[in-house]
Amino acid sequence: MKIALIGFGNVGQGLAQILCEKAAVLQESHGFTPQVVAVATGRRGTLYHPDGLNLEALLVAASRGHLDYYPETEGLYRNWPVPEIIRQSQADVVVEVSPTNLETAHPALDYCYLALEHGKHLVLANKGPVVLAYHELRKRARQAGKQIRFEGTVMAGTPALRTGIQNLAGCFVFAVRGILNGTTNYMLTQMENGLSYNAALAQAQQLGYAETDPSGDVEGWDAAAKAVILAQSLFDAQLSIDQLEVEGITHLTPGDIRDAHQAGERWKLIAQVMPTGGSVKPVRLPLSDPLAHVSGAINAITYTTDLLGEVTLIGPGAGQMTTGFALLSDLLDIHRTM
Amino acid sequence: MKIALIGFGNVGQGLAQILCEKAAVLQESHGFTPQVVAVATGRRGTLYHPDGLNLEALLVAASRGHLDYYPETEGLYRNWPVPEIIRQSQADVVVEVSPTNLETAHPALDYCYLALEHGKHLVLANKGPVVLAYHELRKRARQAGKQIRFEGTVMAGTPALRTGIQNLAGCFVFAVRGILNGTTNYMLTQMENGLSYNAALAQAQQLGYAETDPSGDVEGWDAAAKAVILAQSLFDAQLSIDQLEVEGITHLTPGDIRDAHQAGERWKLIAQVMPTGGSVKPVRLPLSDPLAHVSGAINAITYTTDLLGEVTLIGPGAGQMTTGFALLSDLLDIHRTM
Repeated sequence: MKIALIGFGNVGQGLAQILCEKAAVLQESHGFTPQVVAVATGRRGTLYHPDGLNLEALLVAASRGHLDYYPETEGLYRNWPVPEIIRQSQADVVVEVSPTNLETAHPALDYCYLALEHGKHLVLANKGPVVLAYHELRKRARQAGKQIRFEGTVMAGTPALRTGIQNLAGCFVFAVRGILNGTTNYMLTQMENGLSYNAALAQAQQLGYAETDPSGDVEGWDAAAKAVILAQSLFDAQLSIDQLEVEGITHLTPGDIRDAHQAGERWKLIAQVMPTGGSVKPVRLPLSDPLAHVSGAINAITYTTDLLGEVTLIGPGAGQMTTGFALLSDLLDIHRTM
Repeated sequence: MKIALIGFGNVGQGLAQILCEKAAVLQESHGFTPQVVAVATGRRGTLYHPDGLNLEALLVAASRGHLDYYPETEGLYRNWPVPEIIRQSQADVVVEVSPTNLETAHPALDYCYLALEHGKHLVLANKGPVVLAYHELRKRARQAGKQIRFEGTVMAGTPALRTGIQNLAGCFVFAVRGILNGTTNYMLTQMENGLSYNAALAQAQQLGYAETDPSGDVEGWDAAAKAVILAQSLFDAQLSIDQLEVEGITHLTPGDIRDAHQAGERWKLIAQVMPTGGSVKPVRLPLSDPLAHVSGAINAITYTTDLLGEVTLIGPGAGQMTTGFALLSDLLDIHRTM
């Protein structure tokens, strides 16, 4: 399998590292011998080698800040524009891991369309294209006879989409409810431990959970994007992010937290979707709810089904290696059908 | 897909009911049109019709206590011996749902071998053959080019095996730890609520969780059988049930429960397996452990992995429709590759 990586930040490097470290076991256990033939970044250069790039050298170059540090090799092409790479690199799969843009999803979405047009399978950790153009991407993938997978967009490598779509196939899923944003769950846990909102936020920023501008997390938009992805992929819903009721945790006070605690309850930022719509908002959960016990940066999701009742999956929701694993599991799924 | 059901108790009838109720959606969403061509019971007759049995009539006959109540139809064969059904019924898949026997697994194991010998795929909810002959069954299935699946043997329809084997493929799983027996978990929850061991047991029996002879549950053997299945299928371990350290909950006193409570901990009957072995025993869990909050007859399992850290799955562990769903999901998986 020949792979072109669009984006080579944290997550792309995570995948490269996993492919590097697990090369032997992936070949032995899964007959899987992936080859990264191209890597494209926005401002740190691009590389293409028809026979595959050396992953260790690639990681070293990235750590030095620019792909120009990748050693000169015969047959290596440097700094092709991304569309050129997609068109000409002979990759079987394009992996889109550039940063999420929920406003337009561009240029990632254009690259996705181009990849399908040129007969590539598509794997994404970038939420933008999936949130804004799921149905169009599905349609074009079907027309091209190619697959599109995006396990890493929800709960990173914790198999939330696989569980809902594949493992529960045959059940009717009425609703999905989850803690889909690790930053806010970490903050709420710290507020229960006595910290103020601002102190909890500062701590989340210090640990790298929250960005300098934390609005995407604390105002609920990151969770809302994931809710839209769940609604579209599980229920085939036609749902855009502005059709969701979205409320973040910015209004929660230490008093609210205390009141809940005294009533034997806990505030959690809960994303909920049903076939008809959904919401993201702080909810007071009774301690009998499995989601009430999910603390720190951990995520969780509960599927409510006809045959099994409630099934809950708990695991990491972010991180370089965890999201890298999501990409690997998508690639393995595609490999099985190639 | 033509199916022969060996065993038609609770679980077999659950599958029949699901196939009956979901016929339209299974065809529409999955292109899956299963046909139950044969049903065999130990003491309540057998039926075979090459064009398929009527599931509603079958369920009515079963509710009246004997398959002889199934209406006379042209082409129907009654009371063939089971081996005859396996050999001659033209079924694509044999579904083994006769009661578990952990001593010898017979006659179920003989039927399994016969089914593979005659080119049938194999789906089991019966733990006996998997616990006692996993590696031999695997070998014979490979030789026959057929599949063998047994999601229903661990946590019923909650996709515990699928999660470990398929969804986490690419991760290294170091260990698995779980609450795999609903009866004892229900009893421990009731003991925490103040009941004595005997009162909790009586209540579990009244609710149908525990059998008249509860030793399989309370002495840990049911959980141990599931631990062996996990060790074999996840780690390819050569492990028999008597190589596990097994201790049930019969020695736990209200005092033990109270002591744990005062230390902010909870007793749970924990099955644990690693590639090198395993155990089933009561463990005091801190409340920070997701398994500590799994109460009542619910089951749960935690996979400890290299790339994701801990991933936990919580769901029902027993029940007619839940185990029926496990069989359906195995059949759907086989259908996808047929």
